[in-house]
Amino acid sequence: MGRTFLSPEHHKKRVERIQEQLDEDGFDTFLVLNSRNIFYLTGLSFIPTERPIILILHKGEVNFFVPSLEVDHVEHQVPFVSQVFSYFEYPDEKHPMYHLADNLMDDLKIQPNKVASEGGGCPGYWGYKGPSFEDVTGLKFMLLPDMIMDMRVIKEPEEIEMMRESSKWADRAHKYLQEFTEVGANEIDITIRASTQGSQDMVKELGDAYKPTGFSMFPAIALYRGQIGPNSYFPHALSRGLVFKKGDTLVTGASSDVYGIHAELERTMFMGEPSARQTELYNAMMAAQDAALEAAGPGVPCADVDKAARGAFKAKDVFHLVRHHTGHALGMEGHERPFLDIGSEEVLQPGMIFSCEPGIYEQGLGGFRNSDTFIVTDDGIEVTTKYSRDLSELIVE
Amino acid sequence: MGRTFLSPEHHKKRVERIQEQLDEDGFDTFLVLNSRNIFYLTGLSFIPTERPIILILHKGEVNFFVPSLEVDHVEHQVPFVSQVFSYFEYPDEKHPMYHLADNLMDDLKIQPNKVASEGGGCPGYWGYKGPSFEDVTGLKFMLLPDMIMDMRVIKEPEEIEMMRESSKWADRAHKYLQEFTEVGANEIDITIRASTQGSQDMVKELGDAYKPTGFSMFPAIALYRGQIGPNSYFPHALSRGLVFKKGDTLVTGASSDVYGIHAELERTMFMGEPSARQTELYNAMMAAQDAALEAAGPGVPCADVDKAARGAFKAKDVFHLVRHHTGHALGMEGHERPFLDIGSEEVLQPGMIFSCEPGIYEQGLGGFRNSDTFIVTDDGIEVTTKYSRDLSELIVE
Repeated sequence: MGRTFLSPEHHKKRVERIQEQLDEDGFDTFLVLNSRNIFYLTGLSFIPTERPIILILHKGEVNFFVPSLEVDHVEHQVPFVSQVFSYFEYPDEKHPMYHLADNLMDDLKIQPNKVASEGGGCPGYWGYKGPSFEDVTGLKFMLLPDMIMDMRVIKEPEEIEMMRESSKWADRAHKYLQEFTEVGANEIDITIRASTQGSQDMVKELGDAYKPTGFSMFPAIALYRGQIGPNSYFPHALSRGLVFKKGDTLVTGASSDVYGIHAELERTMFMGEPSARQTELYNAMMAAQDAALEAAGPGVPCADVDKAARGAFKAKDVFHLVRHHTGHALGMEGHERPFLDIGSEEVLQPGMIFSCEPGIYEQGLGGFRNSDTFIVTDDGIEVTTKYSRDLSELIVE
Repeated sequence: MGRTFLSPEHHKKRVERIQEQLDEDGFDTFLVLNSRNIFYLTGLSFIPTERPIILILHKGEVNFFVPSLEVDHVEHQVPFVSQVFSYFEYPDEKHPMYHLADNLMDDLKIQPNKVASEGGGCPGYWGYKGPSFEDVTGLKFMLLPDMIMDMRVIKEPEEIEMMRESSKWADRAHKYLQEFTEVGANEIDITIRASTQGSQDMVKELGDAYKPTGFSMFPAIALYRGQIGPNSYFPHALSRGLVFKKGDTLVTGASSDVYGIHAELERTMFMGEPSARQTELYNAMMAAQDAALEAAGPGVPCADVDKAARGAFKAKDVFHLVRHHTGHALGMEGHERPFLDIGSEEVLQPGMIFSCEPGIYEQGLGGFRNSDTFIVTDDGIEVTTKYSRDLSELIVE
């Protein structure tokens, strides 16, 4: 069994890394607004609502500003918290931002030119409206929206271990998806059954090592989302409750949530023996995926990986069927930067994690896309999703 | 069976309403960025990613700006679309915003002082970065972030019918949740089993009338998210894979997705006969919920509904256990404005839909909260969630 969660000490070290950078850049105070960034740094997972929740890094202290309904939740989840400032509710008679101003000015005594924030004010989510941090404090906040995401681009060894574990359970759930799929079944039923079975396996086999963060309803998922038969032509179709028919091309998806880290696994499958054209397009897509995986490695421009896939598609004369680039980084979010795209100016570095998923789409017939997750290592890449890509093993009889 | 979806003609009428308002306000062009607002107006549901997707309302035309992977998806889903402008991919060698500028300036010939938008640029989602609309066009866009949400505050009769339908399936899924819950079971297992069974009923019984939008993996859900035993003290706990024990206080949740409309149903339940204190706190919460529902009606200030609940809690001497206000509007999103909160300056109007969910939380014992969905009618309110609130029926033996 691999790593399945991080300790509070690990989170504390992340905070210290950000703190060092803030010290270097001359900031005493940094307001973190993004809920995934707050989880990354502190381990606090919560339901974002209209009520502002802010992590206040201040001179080495980890402080929070939260509604009353989250006060004890923070103290319960973040053992290294210093102070929890709170307001009763949003909107309330006194707007939370004026409570925040009191805490920042009177309690923490923040100083001009020493304050930074991920945004000018709290995000306008689920009906929230409010004044900016500058409005209520009179101080200009330096905007550092990318500071923590920049840190998240290179995954730590522990995150890489969790990505391997996530890939393993994605594979498992996908096995059930393929096993349960049959002519006449509804995609929604099969999705739920496969995700249920995959999740039950994961919870049972990991036992106490499984520490859900609450981000995902299913620990493991394997799903159809509308890419069934001719509808699989739409790369980002959404589930419409379609029913499987003989001859259909299918595009699947699977993942699992290991302490917020998600692998990406997708397969093209066929309802019965594929036609000559289905086989031809599947093989063209495989050639592009192989070309991209062969091109990838440390020091390689992201653009070159996309070019390798494009080259393979052009060689097979199917480039006109391409609708998207080759892949994207991933980790705690479904897509992250950088992208495997001809327009990217970034370079693959050890510790980055990407999807590799070149695809082609023929109207009337369907979509052809496999997605695999790979880690950039010191001397190459490691593909963490192991599900077979062999066409003969992707036929549903 | 009630209404379960809207026709393209219905969406077209919504577009016409916005168009009229834009004409009145002197705008030729309006860029809609919020994915729920785009669905509300056009019926297009899609997966938001780093790739910009914009609905361009222009002089009575419904145009889209989308990545190549969504072009046919738009034409398939929005029969009244005029023009679909597209770019290949993000980031690509030419940033999508420069393609947008070409379409706006050269194809649509947008004019100074005639252009409005929901935001200054596309949202920075999943790694997207880009210049503002002003940067690429040289024109100032009037920001109208609330225009469509303002329209969504008053629900149409068809949305109210769908909310009744959603409530019905929330009740059904919750029935399974209660039925499956037992000492020793894991909250994740019970959540998945109840949601599976509720969803299967919904898909089967609605048949062709069920038109999933793809927003939700489960058509119907009934769940635990960590509010089990002493952990139910945390109003917004998140699932931790807890196991049910005798004496536990539980707080549940249930909903279903009817063409993007979601009811809210929550119940406090007990593992075995409740203690005197559990009964006392349950009854206090019920008194507050009843007081709020009695206070609610057309023309009543939102603040007064919250005050009614607070008054009931104070009368029972448990106001110190309150951690949040009485409720929030809802519809296509989990929470919407306005809020049933002492600080709200809004008034209940016919067609508004709210949750009513005053709650109290005692450390060491747990949380006590029922949530019901109600519609404001011309002469009162209609509660659409019908699940029993009778304590004797909420005991899991």
